[in-house]
Amino acid sequence: MNQTNPSPLPTPPAIETMRWEGTPEGFLRLIDQTRLPDKLEEIECHDVATVWNAIKRLSVRGAPAIAIAAAYGVVLGVREATEPCDATTVNKVCDYLATSRPTAVNLFWALDRIRAQSQLWFASKNLDRATLLQRLLDEARAIHEEDRQMCRAIGRHGVALLENITGVLTHCNAGGLATAEYGTALSVFFTAQDQGRDLHVFVDETRPLLQGARLTAWELQQRSIKATLICDSMAAQVMREGKVQAAIVGADRIAANGDTANKIGTYSVALHCRAHQIPFYVAAPSTTFDLSIESGAEIPIEQRAADEVTSLYGRQTAPHGVDVYNPAFDVTPAELIAGIITERGVIQPVSRDTIATHFA
Amino acid sequence: MNQTNPSPLPTPPAIETMRWEGTPEGFLRLIDQTRLPDKLEEIECHDVATVWNAIKRLSVRGAPAIAIAAAYGVVLGVREATEPCDATTVNKVCDYLATSRPTAVNLFWALDRIRAQSQLWFASKNLDRATLLQRLLDEARAIHEEDRQMCRAIGRHGVALLENITGVLTHCNAGGLATAEYGTALSVFFTAQDQGRDLHVFVDETRPLLQGARLTAWELQQRSIKATLICDSMAAQVMREGKVQAAIVGADRIAANGDTANKIGTYSVALHCRAHQIPFYVAAPSTTFDLSIESGAEIPIEQRAADEVTSLYGRQTAPHGVDVYNPAFDVTPAELIAGIITERGVIQPVSRDTIATHFA
Repeated sequence: MNQTNPSPLPTPPAIETMRWEGTPEGFLRLIDQTRLPDKLEEIECHDVATVWNAIKRLSVRGAPAIAIAAAYGVVLGVREATEPCDATTVNKVCDYLATSRPTAVNLFWALDRIRAQSQLWFASKNLDRATLLQRLLDEARAIHEEDRQMCRAIGRHGVALLENITGVLTHCNAGGLATAEYGTALSVFFTAQDQGRDLHVFVDETRPLLQGARLTAWELQQRSIKATLICDSMAAQVMREGKVQAAIVGADRIAANGDTANKIGTYSVALHCRAHQIPFYVAAPSTTFDLSIESGAEIPIEQRAADEVTSLYGRQTAPHGVDVYNPAFDVTPAELIAGIITERGVIQPVSRDTIATHFA
Repeated sequence: MNQTNPSPLPTPPAIETMRWEGTPEGFLRLIDQTRLPDKLEEIECHDVATVWNAIKRLSVRGAPAIAIAAAYGVVLGVREATEPCDATTVNKVCDYLATSRPTAVNLFWALDRIRAQSQLWFASKNLDRATLLQRLLDEARAIHEEDRQMCRAIGRHGVALLENITGVLTHCNAGGLATAEYGTALSVFFTAQDQGRDLHVFVDETRPLLQGARLTAWELQQRSIKATLICDSMAAQVMREGKVQAAIVGADRIAANGDTANKIGTYSVALHCRAHQIPFYVAAPSTTFDLSIESGAEIPIEQRAADEVTSLYGRQTAPHGVDVYNPAFDVTPAELIAGIITERGVIQPVSRDTIATHFA
């Protein structure tokens, strides 16, 4: 299951969501995701404020990608600080970066990891500026690389599930842009390509914010993977016609029993899979599990603004004043999930017991 | 089942898709549906070319509404003709109007009916211009009124199915704008309101062309019916939360076994209804049945242009050059349909036999 066959054919390079250039005196490049899919433009971050703004205005998005960008941002922030070279300065820079996206759990996790590391460094001895910057950069690169490896492992485990499958459907963007490189659900498709497989991916556009159309379709196109964009309401028809034989999606949060919160519309895809007797898989790092939550019933459904549904790029698409129901995500019950792919392997079948065993 | 209780509360007037003003020397007013939902504007048609253009550029849309507009258009065309007052002139005007929307079956039906009538009139004796125009106007009004009565009858039969139901879901626009007045699926909701019922209607926005958001939400808002707009991918979640206990949609074409072609996404709604054990109804005039078609398998699925999915109001929402699958409609198998509501009553359960009996 843990195959690492070399690629039989040259494949396009992975999309680099971000990249640090050079030494600690270098800078961070990141793809400006607000310009996609119209334009592929990069932002060069030579100071911490540019990183802060890139996170704030969603130029970089997706929980793992935000965490990595912030980790590199600490290097820039400490480099330009006029304060003494000590743990307090590192903390101040982390405090500042934490305000860029106040609800991003991964962001806090990465910054706390850097804070804890710098406490350790300064506990043993003082560091000169150059040494501190090098260590901060090494730490950011470690966070970056761990995420890359996690995505690759998900891809390897997931591709083993796709034997005899030629068409697969995905919803929203569980792709490289949200992570270090390969993403979660999309990592399975990228890995399949690396192994010379010729998958055809059907992409739900994912209303209201169109992450499927804007980001997933773009990522697959960049890698020359055969991709077809559909409206969310067409998924059932695509399955009925036999065009896809499996679906793979990402996850925001997974309860101890396997109930999975993900982008609104995911539950709809899972029901269609059951109706057409095709497997529905979730791909997510093990950090997505919240074992303190017994079931999906404990996950509150966030409601988002009406104008996400009633207007697009400033143009009104529905009557003014119309009532809107706009849940940000839904919860797919474990019984509809054929397997959950993590960096550790595949949980299959999905149950409280198999999940407990996976993490034992 | 065929209740005609008087309305216990005053309700807002029905939307008048179109209206002929005055004598045969008058004119046709029609709602410019291309301006909805932003603006409610009417087009005054004082000549046949204005009617032709209104049909051509979709200011009036929906098979029955197009047929009615064309019927009134014949009055205008004959009135301004310089040719002799005879059946040939009527035919020429009909030929011209038939070119406005070359695939509209109802349009041809209405024009053929007028041609046949004028043949009969001129077969017995010559008519003077004023008499011919009056007869043509009477015929157009008859076509208009028959459609109005058909819609009302569907509403009366349908509302009897909604006992104990407080929330209902619809897809696309099977509303008044496509017909003389009350529409088909929406007629059930309008009739419920006339009877003092307080239904809450959830409206699928209906990608890619957003007929639900633009037209259905607007019609319900005009009538002060409680309506909530959702993205198509949210319908399953709305059902799961118990917000709706039935779905009613229109139909493009119904086969002899009850398989129903309707706007893409309808099949998805029907599957969700089954998964949540709530009834899924189709409302359509009996003319929608094509008994020469054995089953839905014989109905070819029309593919539409990619840019309907990849751009909205001229703004690109997906990568250039991405492959798109854009079926115009899907076919819901009869086994998923709890009942079909026509102007004659309700076919329930839906089967080849019950349909044959309905039309016996």
